[in-house]
Amino acid sequence: MNEMLINSRDLRFQLYELLGVETLTQRERFAEHSRETFDAALETARQIAEEQFAPHNRKGDENEPVFRDGRAETIPETKTAWHAFAEAGFLAAHHDAEDGGMQMPTTIQQACHGYFFAANVSTAAYPFLTVAAGNLLSAHGSAEQKERWLPPMLDGRFSGTMALTEPHAGSSLGDLRTRAIPQDDGSYRIVGNKIYISGGEQDITDNIVHMVIARIEGAPAGVKGISLFIVPKYRLDADGNPAEPNDVTLAGLLHKMGYRGTTSTVLNFGDNGDCHGYLVGEANKGLAYMFHMMNEARIGVGVGAALLGYTGYLHSLDYARNRPQGRPVTAKGEGGQIPIIQHADVRRMLLEQKAYAEGGMALCLYAASLFDDTSTGPDAASRAEAQELLDLLTPVVKSWTAEYGCKANDLAIQVLGGAGYTRDYPVEQFYRDNRLNPIHEGTNGIQGMDLLGRKMHQNGGAGFKALLTRVSAAVEEARGHDETAPLAADLEQAMGTVTATARALGEAFGSAGPERVMANASVYLDLMGRFVVSWLWLRQATVAARALPDAHADDTAFYQGKLQAARYYLRWELPRIEHQSRLLQGLDDTCLAMREDWF
Amino acid sequence: MNEMLINSRDLRFQLYELLGVETLTQRERFAEHSRETFDAALETARQIAEEQFAPHNRKGDENEPVFRDGRAETIPETKTAWHAFAEAGFLAAHHDAEDGGMQMPTTIQQACHGYFFAANVSTAAYPFLTVAAGNLLSAHGSAEQKERWLPPMLDGRFSGTMALTEPHAGSSLGDLRTRAIPQDDGSYRIVGNKIYISGGEQDITDNIVHMVIARIEGAPAGVKGISLFIVPKYRLDADGNPAEPNDVTLAGLLHKMGYRGTTSTVLNFGDNGDCHGYLVGEANKGLAYMFHMMNEARIGVGVGAALLGYTGYLHSLDYARNRPQGRPVTAKGEGGQIPIIQHADVRRMLLEQKAYAEGGMALCLYAASLFDDTSTGPDAASRAEAQELLDLLTPVVKSWTAEYGCKANDLAIQVLGGAGYTRDYPVEQFYRDNRLNPIHEGTNGIQGMDLLGRKMHQNGGAGFKALLTRVSAAVEEARGHDETAPLAADLEQAMGTVTATARALGEAFGSAGPERVMANASVYLDLMGRFVVSWLWLRQATVAARALPDAHADDTAFYQGKLQAARYYLRWELPRIEHQSRLLQGLDDTCLAMREDWF
Repeated sequence: MNEMLINSRDLRFQLYELLGVETLTQRERFAEHSRETFDAALETARQIAEEQFAPHNRKGDENEPVFRDGRAETIPETKTAWHAFAEAGFLAAHHDAEDGGMQMPTTIQQACHGYFFAANVSTAAYPFLTVAAGNLLSAHGSAEQKERWLPPMLDGRFSGTMALTEPHAGSSLGDLRTRAIPQDDGSYRIVGNKIYISGGEQDITDNIVHMVIARIEGAPAGVKGISLFIVPKYRLDADGNPAEPNDVTLAGLLHKMGYRGTTSTVLNFGDNGDCHGYLVGEANKGLAYMFHMMNEARIGVGVGAALLGYTGYLHSLDYARNRPQGRPVTAKGEGGQIPIIQHADVRRMLLEQKAYAEGGMALCLYAASLFDDTSTGPDAASRAEAQELLDLLTPVVKSWTAEYGCKANDLAIQVLGGAGYTRDYPVEQFYRDNRLNPIHEGTNGIQGMDLLGRKMHQNGGAGFKALLTRVSAAVEEARGHDETAPLAADLEQAMGTVTATARALGEAFGSAGPERVMANASVYLDLMGRFVVSWLWLRQATVAARALPDAHADDTAFYQGKLQAARYYLRWELPRIEHQSRLLQGLDDTCLAMREDWF
Repeated sequence: MNEMLINSRDLRFQLYELLGVETLTQRERFAEHSRETFDAALETARQIAEEQFAPHNRKGDENEPVFRDGRAETIPETKTAWHAFAEAGFLAAHHDAEDGGMQMPTTIQQACHGYFFAANVSTAAYPFLTVAAGNLLSAHGSAEQKERWLPPMLDGRFSGTMALTEPHAGSSLGDLRTRAIPQDDGSYRIVGNKIYISGGEQDITDNIVHMVIARIEGAPAGVKGISLFIVPKYRLDADGNPAEPNDVTLAGLLHKMGYRGTTSTVLNFGDNGDCHGYLVGEANKGLAYMFHMMNEARIGVGVGAALLGYTGYLHSLDYARNRPQGRPVTAKGEGGQIPIIQHADVRRMLLEQKAYAEGGMALCLYAASLFDDTSTGPDAASRAEAQELLDLLTPVVKSWTAEYGCKANDLAIQVLGGAGYTRDYPVEQFYRDNRLNPIHEGTNGIQGMDLLGRKMHQNGGAGFKALLTRVSAAVEEARGHDETAPLAADLEQAMGTVTATARALGEAFGSAGPERVMANASVYLDLMGRFVVSWLWLRQATVAARALPDAHADDTAFYQGKLQAARYYLRWELPRIEHQSRLLQGLDDTCLAMREDWF
């Protein structure tokens, strides 16, 4: 495979030259690590992704899991891939060494995950959901719960799910109806229905640990009465082995446009009144716990969306280099056909994809590095600042990568033309698979509300201030190089626009009221995405400009590509914020004023 | 079916209030027609589309045609629908009465087609390709050819195809290799391979008439040596009935992301040296003939793309009205759930879809009305002007509807959320089906080259001048109403931007050279699309504003909706041309300068 998942030169650039992840090894938690251990993990991920995940990506798409006798049957390659992932230690990679983990930085872990997303997002979903469920348990479970449930989730015997959504409530989690009835032994009986539960049933692991949100009888209505429970498919015997079935029934499988290899399930809990659940943490704090996990999951969605965009880009680039068709504009029909990469419009589509794919990966890895900083930053202040910035960026990471990852996949199809529309090439599958990302783990509309309604103001706007400080520093640095100075000026101007917009909207909450301000939250979300990604492209350009004078031939081309992609993004994509800012600052009410009966 | 294909109130508005199609009945060719005959045709189309096409749209998607013993088997509903279409006279609708047609205006015919596209684009492809092939034959065939081939293509016994693309050449038709070897009897033997031939094989009709482009032995290389041939699946006996097989072999079926009910074929012509072809018109003029047809086909693609966007919009609107979820921003979690249409962000997604769907239909019907004017306009000058404007608008119609029809379908999925991503709802299929439209009948990249490289300058820019004249008139008219005056000012400003851009680019062909100018042809295409659609939205708004004072309650809501959608498009979408214009006028070379080895 000719580097169809991630360009390894780019990954090295982003990790070592841009983020400087080697410095993490100076932190106590990562002291056993080195560039060598990081590279080894990345290389292992690449190899397993290429050998165990990518080859059945199409097969999984064409052979959806089948509902039979209350079970879901997956193709056997899914199980083989799961075990390869588990045996390489990726389920446990970021956990403590004493728990069987490797204390891997999240930045490296997410980069490793990138390979699996790019190779086969459907098969990768099973382990990634398990990692997320494990994190939830690790953060909020009791010592006894962790001892009982975590080891088999880290070594691959059990998988995990997130069971949030209910048919009548969708994103409105406060309306959930699943009930938890306290029992004398301290456990609960769970009764309710969940929908869209990915990996909710499969034939891969010995047991499935559902992390279920439900309302304890008598708890307050709405979001304040939600608790979190461990609800296994099989209850465990005294030795911790799966024993009795726990009255969790697979009511049906959902059939999706893409992501077909991942079971999407309708689950009934407690049809026979015998579904046992174990409360995690305190009662009525379930949603807060879940959001803790969800914020990690949103970064994970970002990685998936960006990397699907990335692999599509590499596939279309490969096609464009090798497909002869047409002639230069100036050739008047004379001469032989040229590879389509030589057509300006094809280069435009490739450059746009590069800006989204590499920009998306940079955004996700930056967020991952903030995650590391929240737990291992040098001091409390820096950890707090990292947390504020990460909170602010989370909706941006999730939504920008989803939106533009899909757009990248759209362009990949267009580069291939008729071939791209057939199932003989993988780009159409990437396009279908990626379309889930703007929906799950909070739709992009919800991300906009989260950013504008909550994160912008959290702790006096600390996250936004941290962002501006870092953007200013990047502008200063970029001014020092001829290649990047004009781009620095562009970003500085954009910073003025973004700041003015944020201030105007902040004031309007009081004057015009939240309904008016929040009506255009999606526009604000896109504006912030463009701003943040422009900043990260400027940083990449600056690193490239600094390295260029001493670079060797291959590296020169690579760095020039970074500079050109940065120019593309700042010249072609960033300026759209000017119009967005006018709509926002004017509190444009075109959509809000559209009455229901006018449609 | 609750008007899920087209809002009939909107269709009446567009045809009778906006375009005034009733005035066509004053023209000699349409003298037998009346609003009643138009309405009867539309009603018949709606009924057949709803009863014979829509019900198997999903079934056709799930049961792709099967390759068996050299044949393609389709689901039986396809054939039933074909015959319903044919028996209602839609294959012949626009032909002369003496040829068994109804002399239907193209505007009405395309509106009728809209219902079929919205209902089932895959099944509709068979008759629409046949209509296009019949038009080609009707325009360029000899009297004897027309007598022989046309009647069975108009009554539904034979279908037609367009056989242009070859595997090694794709869009570069001048590189075709299919050969035509002259025979003593005046016919030709055809030898070659074609790919992506829609409807190239099926089990619906008694015969298939392939319109094939090929190079006569000894003809010039490139586009100047291409001739057009009738190449049937079966040769006809003396009575005109299908007799001997004509050595056209189905080499394989292509499997697509969407549009799955339509066979997409690889065809071999003359594997056994016995494939007879009959030259249409003069030798070496085949590409000109084909482009004549192709321009009609591009309007047809526009109708399909717009109407897929339209039906997706209606489905998501219906869902949004009926799905309770969440609460108003100001409710703080109190009270019952509200239908999601009451959330501002959902209204934004619906309004954007409305702007694309109804705007796309307006664009296509306007182009169709120009088509009528080219043949039946009151005098030679008006016919010539209509032709120039139609030529200019054709790439805009094809590309804008394809781009934003897909975008509308993307938004329809987003409105439905997780449900929209499942195959339990039709919106995901619309999204997959529509994705073909930016590719076939000339990719959007090729439309940009056609617009900027050819149509803008054709006959001294006559089409562009005609456009500006009509836009100016619309601005004048819109100034007269309070509701539309601000929008008129917006469009007038945009006209200045567009004119300046066109002038700058026209001059740059000479100074900077075509390669530099053409590099950003896609940006110019989108700018023109935004401008043209804004003009048509302003016209709709003006008609609505004029009608509002005397309107009844239901109509008031409808007209207010038109005004609001116009406001949305001119406030939210049109202003993007300012940045596009800066890129274009500055001859931005970011994409052109991106070197192949920098990727």
